[in-house]
Amino acid sequence: MSKSDISIALLHYPVLNKNGETGSSAVTNLDIHDIARLSRTYGLKNYYIVTPLQDQKSLVKKIVEHWTINKGGQINPDRKEALGIVKICDSIDDVKNNLLKDGLSPVLISTTAVKKKDSIEMETLKEMISDNKKHFLIILGTAWGLAEEIFEKSDYVLEPVETGSDYNHLSVRSAAAIIIDRLLSDR
Amino acid sequence: MSKSDISIALLHYPVLNKNGETGSSAVTNLDIHDIARLSRTYGLKNYYIVTPLQDQKSLVKKIVEHWTINKGGQINPDRKEALGIVKICDSIDDVKNNLLKDGLSPVLISTTAVKKKDSIEMETLKEMISDNKKHFLIILGTAWGLAEEIFEKSDYVLEPVETGSDYNHLSVRSAAAIIIDRLLSDR
Repeated sequence: MSKSDISIALLHYPVLNKNGETGSSAVTNLDIHDIARLSRTYGLKNYYIVTPLQDQKSLVKKIVEHWTINKGGQINPDRKEALGIVKICDSIDDVKNNLLKDGLSPVLISTTAVKKKDSIEMETLKEMISDNKKHFLIILGTAWGLAEEIFEKSDYVLEPVETGSDYNHLSVRSAAAIIIDRLLSDR
Repeated sequence: MSKSDISIALLHYPVLNKNGETGSSAVTNLDIHDIARLSRTYGLKNYYIVTPLQDQKSLVKKIVEHWTINKGGQINPDRKEALGIVKICDSIDDVKNNLLKDGLSPVLISTTAVKKKDSIEMETLKEMISDNKKHFLIILGTAWGLAEEIFEKSDYVLEPVETGSDYNHLSVRSAAAIIIDRLLSDR
């Protein structure tokens, strides 16, 4: 296994709103930074920010370019390196096509904070990543989580982060950090 | 061991700036939310936001009250529960006094992204927490990390999050999530 066998996608559509309806969410600046820094620290291949909304794509592009080709990157080269792995896509299909162009046919792993039927355990996925020669795409949802159609499109649904607590309301930034560490650290 | 044997402190003074000088940093809204949600999810006792600056303390108080006693808490009860464990302190000494009032004499554990002499391993601290009847205070720094005087005041310095990578620039939010998960999860 190489850590670069993994990419992350952060979805802003289709996701659930507070009332359980499918819609889109706005991009959060710190989601771009935190998950890019996490991805670079763990040596992941790509970090995809997924939104079909043109104004949101333009915003992400502007932020990423500030930290890569413009002034921010000169001031903070570490940040430049992290933001340099961000890619902007319209949809999960667009992400798949992007990976296919690199000869990678990804295994789609969707994530959830709510236990679902037939979800796979963290340890099982860790072994699959170690054993397998495939590329794995970990899909995270913003707002109230991924819409059902993403679970249906996925090859596997990963179990929620288990903490033994009665409360599980991690931010997507924290969940991403914990999932990637559990999957890739040597423990 | 009970998970409530641990508290977290996020320091905004004394921390290092980009040039390695000691100073203070501004509070970031998502640091309040993300680490409060993490702390509540893992059942920690208190989450201390530490800054001596009056305007910053007022700002944190306003944000916390929005999500606890005011409108935000009515709209989002989960967030209310998370933000309800935030406490605002002037300094690490103030944090210690706050814990002492509850009869807890904390073991101070400072954290760093740069390997330091005599730091303890994550696994060693995990065992100490399991074996010990004491209260542990995990101290995180904002900006470019904790100032030397905090390391000197601490009982132990925790090794950086090891990822086997040549790059380690996690956000404090991601580092907090990974450290707490490594210390408290059952793996």
